[in-house]
Amino acid sequence: MRYLGLLETYKDMLPVTDKTPMLTLHEGNTPLIRAENLSNELDLDIYFKYEGLNPTGSFKDRGMVMAVAKAMEEGSRTIMCASTGNTSAAAAAYAARGGLNCIVLIPNNNIALGKLAQAIIYGAKVIAIEGNFDRALEIVREITAKHPITLVNSVNPYRIEGQKTAAFEVSDQLGKAPDYLAIPVGNAGNISAYWKGFKEYYEQGKISSLPKMVGFEAEGAMAIVKGEPIAEPETIATAIRIGNPASWKTAVAAAEESGGQINYVTDEEILHAYKTIAGREGIFAEPASAASIAGVMKLKREGVFRGGETVVCVLTGHGLKDPNIAIKSVNAEPVVVEDSEAAVMEAIRKLEGEA
Amino acid sequence: MRYLGLLETYKDMLPVTDKTPMLTLHEGNTPLIRAENLSNELDLDIYFKYEGLNPTGSFKDRGMVMAVAKAMEEGSRTIMCASTGNTSAAAAAYAARGGLNCIVLIPNNNIALGKLAQAIIYGAKVIAIEGNFDRALEIVREITAKHPITLVNSVNPYRIEGQKTAAFEVSDQLGKAPDYLAIPVGNAGNISAYWKGFKEYYEQGKISSLPKMVGFEAEGAMAIVKGEPIAEPETIATAIRIGNPASWKTAVAAAEESGGQINYVTDEEILHAYKTIAGREGIFAEPASAASIAGVMKLKREGVFRGGETVVCVLTGHGLKDPNIAIKSVNAEPVVVEDSEAAVMEAIRKLEGEA
Repeated sequence: MRYLGLLETYKDMLPVTDKTPMLTLHEGNTPLIRAENLSNELDLDIYFKYEGLNPTGSFKDRGMVMAVAKAMEEGSRTIMCASTGNTSAAAAAYAARGGLNCIVLIPNNNIALGKLAQAIIYGAKVIAIEGNFDRALEIVREITAKHPITLVNSVNPYRIEGQKTAAFEVSDQLGKAPDYLAIPVGNAGNISAYWKGFKEYYEQGKISSLPKMVGFEAEGAMAIVKGEPIAEPETIATAIRIGNPASWKTAVAAAEESGGQINYVTDEEILHAYKTIAGREGIFAEPASAASIAGVMKLKREGVFRGGETVVCVLTGHGLKDPNIAIKSVNAEPVVVEDSEAAVMEAIRKLEGEA
Repeated sequence: MRYLGLLETYKDMLPVTDKTPMLTLHEGNTPLIRAENLSNELDLDIYFKYEGLNPTGSFKDRGMVMAVAKAMEEGSRTIMCASTGNTSAAAAAYAARGGLNCIVLIPNNNIALGKLAQAIIYGAKVIAIEGNFDRALEIVREITAKHPITLVNSVNPYRIEGQKTAAFEVSDQLGKAPDYLAIPVGNAGNISAYWKGFKEYYEQGKISSLPKMVGFEAEGAMAIVKGEPIAEPETIATAIRIGNPASWKTAVAAAEESGGQINYVTDEEILHAYKTIAGREGIFAEPASAASIAGVMKLKREGVFRGGETVVCVLTGHGLKDPNIAIKSVNAEPVVVEDSEAAVMEAIRKLEGEA
């Protein structure tokens, strides 16, 4: 059977009507990969939900397909967001697919065009304002409130609806809910969406238990952990570098209701986890994604687990989203030798010895 | 049902024995996405087989999982290849997953470390020789012939075995074989693998017809089209910049036996197709991938199609593999305006007018 995307697969669980276009880039249906080595090492049953294998390379596709389909249903011709990262890429891709215009508003300071290249190749039009990111989001809200242009930032409620499907998939793939769901926390929409999804599946009797939700902010952006917004958030994990999460309350509720927690991990822990999952499990995820497994390692040290629990770690984006971090975080300089079999074999023996 | 990767899914069609480890990163199971806009425009029924959604971002994972699993079965502790691109990334990922060492041999000239970063983050050890690429491959062959180190370049026959599974998936997803299978041709292993796969499925009675295989080289690297090796191949599509294809004969046989052809496309046609599938269909593939749809556009102009034929275009790798081309190929400079609703709305009206 050919997989036909999230709206088709989960239409009974989503705000899909007869008039909703069945927009799809075949988002979702992402792998749940067992962490063979880390499971042994941590005495847990760990799985990665590898959201980097969504079409634009991040979990944002789940919410965006729903938001853009509803924009089309409502007759919108243009969508708009303030974003310099994964959100703009997803918005641009689905706008292209649906034949809509996509406007991306950004602050005109230190823009890394590399981050925006993906949105631009999908045809998004980028406007930079002489102001900061908050001001950009404010203008997006003002404009979309008055004009027939649809806001697709995370305040669009359809985003959470689409994102909750990841909880359905995890449950279907495992055949049950995991004991723990570990997830990076930036804007905090994703932990809220997973919790909503698990609760809905539980209410429908499709799972017989609920996971404990454990969310991890980066230390330099740990607004929820600190209990106050961070004016200038800083972390290597750019996708969760957010000082005032939009879904703060629902994230806290998810942690509390489920008996989980919102905790934090340092950049050092994130980088260690980032390199570990690539080098030990063969999975390349963007740094923010590694916060989930870094958090599990932390909770293990803190004695939160008894042993044997099933833990699903959400890997939110593909490592190819941020290749510069990869280059910086490893020693990329090759060993140089002469072009003889003997010289190469000697180098191999040395490298094997180090491994 | 949880998808468990290619070796498990197609074990009856692959050289999988009781002793073969069920290695997997959940490669395969990639989307077959209908090209809604281009199908209308070209009066064809066009689908993209989006191989960029394999775990390392390219189709190479299909062959590599088979090659590395067999290396493990044979007791190998180290795999080795000469590659600066997708092959090294795939080799490194599966070596990490299987607990093997991975050695990548490259020439020590003009190395773009960005291209190698992915292999290195997965833990590959890179050795550069004072010699060219051909010499590197020669040394890999010499070493792997004498030592218990497994060669995983395309001459490893298990690579083709794994890659043929893409033909099985296309057939299963469509419920039949397409009329045409359009595919980029570089080293020519992939067109050979698809043809092998379609023939095996046909022999088993799982499909009742065979597709015409149409392969497309880049003009600056069109060895097969010219009938002679290209000493210094040049094309923007780096993944098919190969002057002396390893699977030359089997590729020609695939085209001839199927009633298809090996043709070529220019860099200009490749870039046009690359931008078209992103901007019109919402699919971001690496430039080499776009050779398949560029080729279909060319055959359409040349009157090869009658109209209505089912055509599957293989998109071999994700666009995120080569972000620099994306930045260069589009106008990435944003429109800059003051931070007022009116100024932004004026800019939007102007951009919508252009669209």
